[in-house]
Amino acid sequence: MNEPPLTRLIEDYRLRVENALDRYLPAATEPPERLHAAMRDAVLGGGKRVRPLQVYLTGESVGVELSVLDGLACAVEMIHAYSLIHDDLPAMDDDDFRRGKPTLHRAYDEATAILAGDALQVLAFSVLSRPDSGPRDPESKLAIIQCLANASGTSGMAGGQVVDIEATGKVLSLPELEQMHLLKTGRLIQACVKIAALCCSGLSAEVSQGLERYGRDIGLAFQIKDDILDVVGDSQTMGKTAGVDQALEKATYPGLLGLESAESKAADLARSACAALEPMGSKADRLKELAEYIVSRQR
Amino acid sequence: MNEPPLTRLIEDYRLRVENALDRYLPAATEPPERLHAAMRDAVLGGGKRVRPLQVYLTGESVGVELSVLDGLACAVEMIHAYSLIHDDLPAMDDDDFRRGKPTLHRAYDEATAILAGDALQVLAFSVLSRPDSGPRDPESKLAIIQCLANASGTSGMAGGQVVDIEATGKVLSLPELEQMHLLKTGRLIQACVKIAALCCSGLSAEVSQGLERYGRDIGLAFQIKDDILDVVGDSQTMGKTAGVDQALEKATYPGLLGLESAESKAADLARSACAALEPMGSKADRLKELAEYIVSRQR
Repeated sequence: MNEPPLTRLIEDYRLRVENALDRYLPAATEPPERLHAAMRDAVLGGGKRVRPLQVYLTGESVGVELSVLDGLACAVEMIHAYSLIHDDLPAMDDDDFRRGKPTLHRAYDEATAILAGDALQVLAFSVLSRPDSGPRDPESKLAIIQCLANASGTSGMAGGQVVDIEATGKVLSLPELEQMHLLKTGRLIQACVKIAALCCSGLSAEVSQGLERYGRDIGLAFQIKDDILDVVGDSQTMGKTAGVDQALEKATYPGLLGLESAESKAADLARSACAALEPMGSKADRLKELAEYIVSRQR
Repeated sequence: MNEPPLTRLIEDYRLRVENALDRYLPAATEPPERLHAAMRDAVLGGGKRVRPLQVYLTGESVGVELSVLDGLACAVEMIHAYSLIHDDLPAMDDDDFRRGKPTLHRAYDEATAILAGDALQVLAFSVLSRPDSGPRDPESKLAIIQCLANASGTSGMAGGQVVDIEATGKVLSLPELEQMHLLKTGRLIQACVKIAALCCSGLSAEVSQGLERYGRDIGLAFQIKDDILDVVGDSQTMGKTAGVDQALEKATYPGLLGLESAESKAADLARSACAALEPMGSKADRLKELAEYIVSRQR
């Protein structure tokens, strides 16, 4: 039997998580209608769905059923969507477009955008704590909630966003830049790998540690590639404005290392991510392909 | 042995929750320092601590140890603090003062205030999912997380805030106003009662339902009293600007019913809250006193 190519799986899982998100998000006909409509627009209006993909591919590699992973994939995408809404606000990056469309505070208003973000964050935890989503074992569910909460808080995404804002217009050292991105993007991507692995109770320490390392490395590689695309990418292909980082005087890898070194750092990280999965043998093939995809993507 | 008066307990529990909050909040010396400092200022800078009090008194009435309740009390106070930070933002109520001090976006900046709110909300769920906080039983912990997540989301606090914003400058009917306040304030206060009760596994359906009703009634009574204090209260005593609702053209109970009817509605609710606790006998005495306190307070 021929295995489907990764591009096919990416498409399948994208559709799968979008269907699941549609089910978990409150209907736009249910009050408060405007808030629900804003949440749905923000979450269902496109996106690469890299984080859900990470959840599904990791879960599959350790033998977890897809239906167990749906709630987790939705929760991380809701957290991601909320962070984009708040990052785009006038008080933060003040972005007018996202994925080729007006940002949420432009399409609605600032108050609605703030509240839609708030409500999406908490909906993620509502989904994870539901008896009918995620793994059955309550201890695993709690470990997943703990992991995602910590990845989103001040030692993760929210902390990274503050460092990002404070760093704007300053010259960072490479360790400072790396720390910022580990927090801002890395922890959540790492959490995608970890929460999927937490659905499987029988993992060896070797495999768990390998996945931990893999998550860390591809999280950083993903952000470096994002920085690179902001420089070399085409606004049309990416669905967002290229060159924004430079205009905002953001600290980036290409800015600090030059384009070529940034590319090779991303490739190194993808390789080391794959090396960490050796204990899993061929079960890790898809995850290795994903690492490749993350650093070679054009959007 | 003489029982201490409620005023003494209010003070004891206030100190207790403030100590616990101090432990759960990241140190201001730990990076990102500015974000942590903002979170600590927002949470530790005063407040009546009515929600934690509710958690402690309910828990005690059904025999739960105080140490089990600390995490829950902190989580609800963090959620409450985050909602105040976001409600005060320029895009929402645009308040410059809170508890006699500059609001968080005034003392820091808007971006920090948005992120501090975001981080406090997720810290609440981090605390609740910790193995060393709340009840030991993982099923109970999950039920508590589910309850608090739903009370904070679009069918609770965040939903109520949207309705509040949309209703500003409009004339609401009494059922519309009641629905708005049930969402905005009521659900979280109700959740305080419910999550404390969830720490006790052996409650009869009669007692559970009584507490549910009690929580609902005092949640609404609390908001009506807040509206009344905004009209008749003294800015000095309250530590916030009186008359704000009227200036903002907010829909309120005194505005809709007149002061006298609003007062008597609050008193009626306190009475019906107490009546719902009859199945608990004398164990509910403190909760009844609290209902009285809520509608007779001057701040």
